[in-house]
Amino acid sequence: MKLASLKGGRDGRLVVVSRDLSRYADASDIAPTLQAALDDWEANGHQLEELARKIEDGSVPTHPFDESECHSPLPRAYQWADGSAYVNHVELVRKARGAEMPETFWTDPLMYQGGSDSFLAPRDPIVMPTDEGWGIDMEGEVAVITGDVPMGVSAEDALSYIRLIMLVNDVSLRGLIPGELAKGFGFFQSKPSSAFSPCAVTPDELGDLWADGKIKAALRVDYNGEAFGRADAGTDMTFHFGQLIAHAAKSRPLGAGTIIGSGTVSNKLDGGPGKPVAEGGVGYSCIAEIRMIETIEKGEAKTSFMKFGDRVGIEMQDSGGQSIFGRIDQTVEKYTG
Amino acid sequence: MKLASLKGGRDGRLVVVSRDLSRYADASDIAPTLQAALDDWEANGHQLEELARKIEDGSVPTHPFDESECHSPLPRAYQWADGSAYVNHVELVRKARGAEMPETFWTDPLMYQGGSDSFLAPRDPIVMPTDEGWGIDMEGEVAVITGDVPMGVSAEDALSYIRLIMLVNDVSLRGLIPGELAKGFGFFQSKPSSAFSPCAVTPDELGDLWADGKIKAALRVDYNGEAFGRADAGTDMTFHFGQLIAHAAKSRPLGAGTIIGSGTVSNKLDGGPGKPVAEGGVGYSCIAEIRMIETIEKGEAKTSFMKFGDRVGIEMQDSGGQSIFGRIDQTVEKYTG
Repeated sequence: MKLASLKGGRDGRLVVVSRDLSRYADASDIAPTLQAALDDWEANGHQLEELARKIEDGSVPTHPFDESECHSPLPRAYQWADGSAYVNHVELVRKARGAEMPETFWTDPLMYQGGSDSFLAPRDPIVMPTDEGWGIDMEGEVAVITGDVPMGVSAEDALSYIRLIMLVNDVSLRGLIPGELAKGFGFFQSKPSSAFSPCAVTPDELGDLWADGKIKAALRVDYNGEAFGRADAGTDMTFHFGQLIAHAAKSRPLGAGTIIGSGTVSNKLDGGPGKPVAEGGVGYSCIAEIRMIETIEKGEAKTSFMKFGDRVGIEMQDSGGQSIFGRIDQTVEKYTG
Repeated sequence: MKLASLKGGRDGRLVVVSRDLSRYADASDIAPTLQAALDDWEANGHQLEELARKIEDGSVPTHPFDESECHSPLPRAYQWADGSAYVNHVELVRKARGAEMPETFWTDPLMYQGGSDSFLAPRDPIVMPTDEGWGIDMEGEVAVITGDVPMGVSAEDALSYIRLIMLVNDVSLRGLIPGELAKGFGFFQSKPSSAFSPCAVTPDELGDLWADGKIKAALRVDYNGEAFGRADAGTDMTFHFGQLIAHAAKSRPLGAGTIIGSGTVSNKLDGGPGKPVAEGGVGYSCIAEIRMIETIEKGEAKTSFMKFGDRVGIEMQDSGGQSIFGRIDQTVEKYTG
């Protein structure tokens, strides 16, 4: 089943979308919003599945689905916690600044608490007051939405609480990160509003692509119309989503509608840093990674962070080339107040 | 006006409470929940104020108000961001571990993003799987709830977006903090669910006690039945709430219902560390602070963190001795799954 929230009000209007993303049926008589559906998934999940079946067999009226009318599936959420499951990415960050990565990073997930009160829609611009010095960057990631998760859940049991899966652009302000992390309390201003894919889909919808708490498909990141990243989300993911959820729930329960992110998808190449797509590699899911590799290989970063007018697309296809979640497509624009 | 959320459902039921906290009237015909009221404060704020006036003049039926029936005013929220406005506290933390505090900490607020999906009720136990090693501690703080705040708001303008004020127990797991901060991404497991005071009140309700974005009254923290802290929340607060909100909104807007915390209330004594209440000082708003002072003065901490059965109370009184927000009163209990 594929769900989306059409723009309207603070929380959007819940709809069920056809597998091929061409049509939708209103689901607001089952639950007005996705959060409301998640709050009583036991009752609502089955009804939504039933509606999804009817959309596929043509037994309910549908409307043409337009991804640009979507808000993020949860336009605002009670929790957005982002892991760094692709430890390769973290290792490169450290290497670029000449620092050793602690060995425990391979066994104990890194995770930060993100702001969840003001997400961007998947086709909204990334609006910033300046594109100088702040280091505007995209981060292509996978994320899951959970039900109510009990405190102390095991990594294995945690997988059963995954209700939906989607993609994220975890917008990052690289220029603000060093100063902020030096203060010791983690990210805040350096992690502005994130955007999520138009659709959130149930794990069963992914078929064989979903296994062991990972999605085994390429995250297609395009930058200014060119292929920038094609890293496989199922490869080099050191911690699967069950492990990330268990980490988040160690000392408190997680409320229904909690979003847990994978961190920037990143693949090694022959045990080392990856190559650009144009050179036959799988590329990168953020600009920072290519800059780190440039720094390691050439002594300095050549690729600029995003400027006003730069555009990022993030998508994932099934084995038949069908977009699974719809497309995040965002342009950086100047904030005028 | 004083608002509370009686337990019931995930978001409670909105009520307006009398000034003396003795009676309440149901407000759910104005807005079913506090979040709903904040989502359209322009329309709902006036109606709630009108109901509050009727409660005071006896022209609406009321029911006896019982703080133990309350959830936190927002049982879950879209954002909980906690500052460290009492820089004295931060300076002591650093001093106790022999580290210098950067000068910029006096001009650039520390703030972390907290989990907001599963708050505790003000009279709920603090339930933890262990009281050994995790270093269970309270942190008595003041917090504000904002309306929609535009990105880039000035500190002065930010004050106009404060809708409500309340108290917090920002429960902290001191034993988990050093390892977590060493990873560089800030707090996560070391900040479990927080609890807020039974009532959230409008700034005008505080009269002269609210000025310049601060509350000028003592935060009364009791520990196992004895006075533990009486620090004045208006003293030694380096950053007022307008500055904290502006810091949070530098690179993104804040959604209505955002909670911004002050950090642990802490007063200096003659420019140095404070003394216990029993020795004539104003005491402390968390155990960590007395432990830091013990460490600085005696070479080691004597006071234990909270064990199962330990109890903390947090309250604030107006000049007439009336509890303003009601009382947070929590006991640490063992989590049994």
